Amino acid sequence: MVLKSFVEVHPDSHFPIQNLPYGVFKAEPGSEPRPGVAIGDYVLDLAVVASAGLFDGPNLKNSDCFNQPNLNKFLGLGRPAWKEARSTLQKLLSADEPILRDNSSLRQRALLPMGKVQMLLPIAIGDYTDFFASKHHAKNCGLIFRGPENPINPNWFHIPIAYHGRASSIVISGTDIIRPRGQGHPTGNALPYFGPSRKLDFELEMAAVVGPGNELGKPVDVNEAADHIFGLVLMNDWSARDIQAWEYVPLGPFLGKSFGTTISPWIVTLDALEPFASDAPEQNPPPLPYLAEKESKNYDISLQVSIVPAGQKDACIISRSNFTHLYWTITQQLAHHTINGCNLRPGDLLGTGTISGPEPDSYGCLLELTWNGQKPLSLGGTTRTFLEDGDEVFFTGCCKGDGYNVGFGRCSGKILPSPP
Amino acid sequence: MVLKSFVEVHPDSHFPIQNLPYGVFKAEPGSEPRPGVAIGDYVLDLAVVASAGLFDGPNLKNSDCFNQPNLNKFLGLGRPAWKEARSTLQKLLSADEPILRDNSSLRQRALLPMGKVQMLLPIAIGDYTDFFASKHHAKNCGLIFRGPENPINPNWFHIPIAYHGRASSIVISGTDIIRPRGQGHPTGNALPYFGPSRKLDFELEMAAVVGPGNELGKPVDVNEAADHIFGLVLMNDWSARDIQAWEYVPLGPFLGKSFGTTISPWIVTLDALEPFASDAPEQNPPPLPYLAEKESKNYDISLQVSIVPAGQKDACIISRSNFTHLYWTITQQLAHHTINGCNLRPGDLLGTGTISGPEPDSYGCLLELTWNGQKPLSLGGTTRTFLEDGDEVFFTGCCKGDGYNVGFGRCSGKILPSPP
Ligand SMILES: [Ca+2]
Ligand SMILES: [Ca+2]
Ligand SMILES: [Mg+2]
Ligand SMILES: [Mg+2]
Ligand code: NI
Repeated sequence: MVLKSFVEVHPDSHFPIQNLPYGVFKAEPGSEPRPGVAIGDYVLDLAVVASAGLFDGPNLKNSDCFNQPNLNKFLGLGRPAWKEARSTLQKLLSADEPILRDNSSLRQRALLPMGKVQMLLPIAIGDYTDFFASKHHAKNCGLIFRGPENPINPNWFHIPIAYHGRASSIVISGTDIIRPRGQGHPTGNALPYFGPSRKLDFELEMAAVVGPGNELGKPVDVNEAADHIFGLVLMNDWSARDIQAWEYVPLGPFLGKSFGTTISPWIVTLDALEPFASDAPEQNPPPLPYLAEKESKNYDISLQVSIVPAGQKDACIISRSNFTHLYWTITQQLAHHTINGCNLRPGDLLGTGTISGPEPDSYGCLLELTWNGQKPLSLGGTTRTFLEDGDEVFFTGCCKGDGYNVGFGRCSGKILPSPP
Repeated sequence: MVLKSFVEVHPDSHFPIQNLPYGVFKAEPGSEPRPGVAIGDYVLDLAVVASAGLFDGPNLKNSDCFNQPNLNKFLGLGRPAWKEARSTLQKLLSADEPILRDNSSLRQRALLPMGKVQMLLPIAIGDYTDFFASKHHAKNCGLIFRGPENPINPNWFHIPIAYHGRASSIVISGTDIIRPRGQGHPTGNALPYFGPSRKLDFELEMAAVVGPGNELGKPVDVNEAADHIFGLVLMNDWSARDIQAWEYVPLGPFLGKSFGTTISPWIVTLDALEPFASDAPEQNPPPLPYLAEKESKNYDISLQVSIVPAGQKDACIISRSNFTHLYWTITQQLAHHTINGCNLRPGDLLGTGTISGPEPDSYGCLLELTWNGQKPLSLGGTTRTFLEDGDEVFFTGCCKGDGYNVGFGRCSGKILPSPP
C-alpha cells in the first residue's frame, strides 16, 4: 500500500510524503529564515517540529540544526541524521499518526501554506563547481565550435571535466536576471564589441548539494561518495555565449557565466530519489581505477524547459530531457573533485553541466536547440535564437512513481534589460 | 621627520608605524581568533584597543568590527572607517603619545610578541578569482605551450583574463602542501598517467582583498574601484602543471590548482602602499572605455622567491620580480570582474596571476624559470626542474621607503608527499 499523509496531496503534486524535500523559507517578510520540508501545498516548519520535541532520535534530539538560517549544519551531520529526520517526518505526517494530525494548535503553527511563504537559498554555498557530464552536450558544443572532426576532446572520456563557478551570484528561483554587458568577439581587425550580450542563453542542469565534507589532502573514495551528497536541485546556469566565446581561451568561462545562476528552492534527497535509480551508461574507455565504482547510478528524472516569451502569457515547452543522459555520475564527479586533495564543505554545489539528450528536442540550451542561432525556434507565434528581454524560462523536474511523483517544483527566472 | 613608534622597530623590519597591516591571530591555542595589526615584532590586539575605548572616531566608536573572528565586517565598512582606524592607530603607537606608551597594564594586554601568537586566515573568503595580468607570464606560457607565433592570445590585450578559483583550499602561510595526485597527459594511445603530480610548481602572485562589495547587476566604475579594495597580500597559487595541461581544455584550470593556495597573514592596506605608487605600463591597444581609468597605478613592491631544498637548511633565491610588472591594474581587474553585473563581497580575493618580469631571473614560476623542465635550476649544490617532496618555498614582498620598509612579511609552504 502507498504511504499517505493526513495532509491532502493532489495526485499531480511534486511533494507527497514520499518526497519531503528540504528548503529554507521566511514565514513573513520580517521573520527569520528557517528550514522546512514541502508536503503538498504546505511547508512544514522544522524549527516548530524541533521545539515541540518531535525529533527524538539519537542524532537530532539535542541538535539545533533546524534553528538555523540555512541547512548547512544539518547537511554536515551526514546520512544517519538524514535518515532519522526522514523517518521521523514520514511518521509524523502519515495518515495514521495522531500527534500532529490531531493537535490543531501545533498543526497551525507547523504547517504553513506554501503560497504565503517566501523561499530563500537553502544553503550557504562556500564553493560552486560546474561539470560538463552530458556526452550529447559535449558533442554538440564541439560540432558547433570546432566542426565534425573529433568534436569531443580526448580528455573528456577520462575526466569528468569541470570548472570553478561563481558562488556569490547564485540566486533562488524567481529572481530576475539582468542581461549582462560585456565584450564580444571582434570581426576582422575591429575593436571587440561591447554592450548587452546578444547571445543570452539558459543551461538546463541539476546540481548535487554536498553533505559532510572532507579534509584538505584526503580524497573521498568513489564508492563512499554518495554519503557526501545530500540531494539534488534544478539549476539554470545562465550563459552569455558571445562573452564566453571571446573570453574563454585559455582559462575557461568567467563573465559569460558569473552574472547569475538560479537554483530551485527544494533539495530532493538521494533517499527520496532511490526508487528512481537506474544504471548509468556504460563507459568506454573504462574509467581509471579511482573513478571505477561498484555501482554506477543515475536517476530517472524527467526534465522540461519552457519559455513564456516577452509580452505573452502562455508557456511553450521547448525541450524534454532526463537526468539519465549523464555520462559521468555525480559520485564520479565528487570523487574526481577530491582526488587531488581538494576539500569540499557542507553546502557546496556541484552542477552536472547541461543535460542534453540525443534527440534535437532534448537539447538543454538554446546554443544547441537553435544550433548557435542558425535555426530559430518557433514559439507562441514568434521565434527565438537566444533570449530576449522579458522572456521567462522555467525548468521542471519530476520522477513518476506508482501513484505519486517525486518532483523538484520549478526553477525560473525572467530576463531584465541591461543597465543603460 | 619620519614618524616613529614608541615600540622599537628594527630598520629592516617590514612592520614599522608607516605600515600597520591587518591580520587575525590566536593569542593561545584555545583562545578566540581576533584582529590585530603588526608593529615591529609585536601584534597589537584590536579587540583590546576597542574595549579600552580608544577607537573614538565616528565610524568605529560603536562598532564591534574588531570583536570578530575575521576582518570581513571591518572591510565592509569601507575607506572612511579604514582611514579612521589608520590615523587612530598611528597616533596611539607614535613615540609622542602617552596613552598606550605609559600604561604598562594596557600595553601588556594589547601588545603581544609576534613569535608567540598563531596567525590565521584574516578573512572568510566567499569567492576567489585569479587573473593573468603579467604580459611576460602570458607570453612565456604561450611560447612554451604553443610556440613563437602569436604566443599571446588576441583577447588578452582587451580583457583582464581570469578564472574562478577554489576558495575552500586557501590556507595561511606555513601550512604544508600535500602533493596532489591526478591524471597527466597520456603518451600516444596509452591510458593517461595517474599518480602524484610530476610537475609541481609555485606561482608568485599577489592578491587584492575586496572591501565593500557591489549589488548583483550593478557594476563598479573603474575610477571608483580603488574604494572597493582594502589591501594586498602575497599569494602562492601552487600548480600541478601535468594535471593542468591535461584537464584545462576547454573549461580552464581545475584540479591542477584547487589542492592548495597560500596567502601571507598580513594585509597591507592601499593607504600604506600609496607612497610607493607608480604609473602602470601604457596599454596598447587602448582599453575599452569601461577599463580606461583616469589614473592607472601599480606599486613598487620588490618580490623575491627562495627555496630551501629538501634536507637542506639554507634558502636559495631563485627569482626577483616586482608588482610593477603587471599590465592590467588591480582596479581594472575589479571593474572588469563586475562589468557583467557579478557581485563582489567583502573578503573576496582577486589574485593578480603570476608576476613575471622581462628577465629570465624575474620569472614567477618554475614552468618559466626551467622552461617547462628543459633548463634545470641549480640551487644549494642540487638541481630542480619542478618541486620535490620536502622543498620549502618562500615569497617575500617589500617596498623601500626613506629609512623604513612597508613589507608583507612572508608567504611560505613546504611540500609533503602524496598519500599512498
Ligand atoms: Ca554549465
Ligand atoms: Ca595563477
Ligand atoms: Mg551561471
Ligand atoms: Mg592554487
Ligand atoms: Ni541518452
